[in-house]
Amino acid sequence: MTSEAEAGGHAALGFCPQFHAAIELIGRRWNGVILQRLLAGPLRFSEIRKGVPRLTDAMLSQRLRELEDAGIVVREVGTDRPVQVVYALTDVGRRLSPVLDAVAEWSNEWAASR
Amino acid sequence: MTSEAEAGGHAALGFCPQFHAAIELIGRRWNGVILQRLLAGPLRFSEIRKGVPRLTDAMLSQRLRELEDAGIVVREVGTDRPVQVVYALTDVGRRLSPVLDAVAEWSNEWAASR
Repeated sequence: MTSEAEAGGHAALGFCPQFHAAIELIGRRWNGVILQRLLAGPLRFSEIRKGVPRLTDAMLSQRLRELEDAGIVVREVGTDRPVQVVYALTDVGRRLSPVLDAVAEWSNEWAASR
Repeated sequence: MTSEAEAGGHAALGFCPQFHAAIELIGRRWNGVILQRLLAGPLRFSEIRKGVPRLTDAMLSQRLRELEDAGIVVREVGTDRPVQVVYALTDVGRRLSPVLDAVAEWSNEWAASR
């Protein structure tokens, strides 16, 4: 078994577990649209889900918990009545913006190539 | 149901099927390391698979077929004996380089935030 490449960066023909975990987290079903929406600012659960075909409450709850565990999303509970819960990106979550921009740009080139 | 947003770009609180398909294709299990390796140049099946823990032949075959169907990878059969089969990125496949660079850079920031 080849020894695993050093963490981060293009490890030509190596295997970078950190890169692998990052790209699979970002690309996991529904995470793209969730992250894209939260880049616009903190949102309530219903606002994240709105207008996303086939995204169920159960699936959105699971994805938000995974993103919280990964340190990319925080759940904030307001003090006013009735209680308001919003989800927001952490600092490192907000730093996904250039990644999502790069994907959006590539998706145009990909669509044009078809 | 909200009408689906125009294709491509950050559609604040809209839903962009094209962006959604692109980010889920890139992030699908194993595609990150396959694309990263092929950015180094055309490779044989065994060279793509080498040193990637838990990636089976069956899974790599499936992913390569999906990437071929998506117009991102081409399978090239050489004319010499014995026959040599290599996989290479198409033009639009190679334009994934800035996306993978952005993910690699973010993965370092993500690791540092943990």
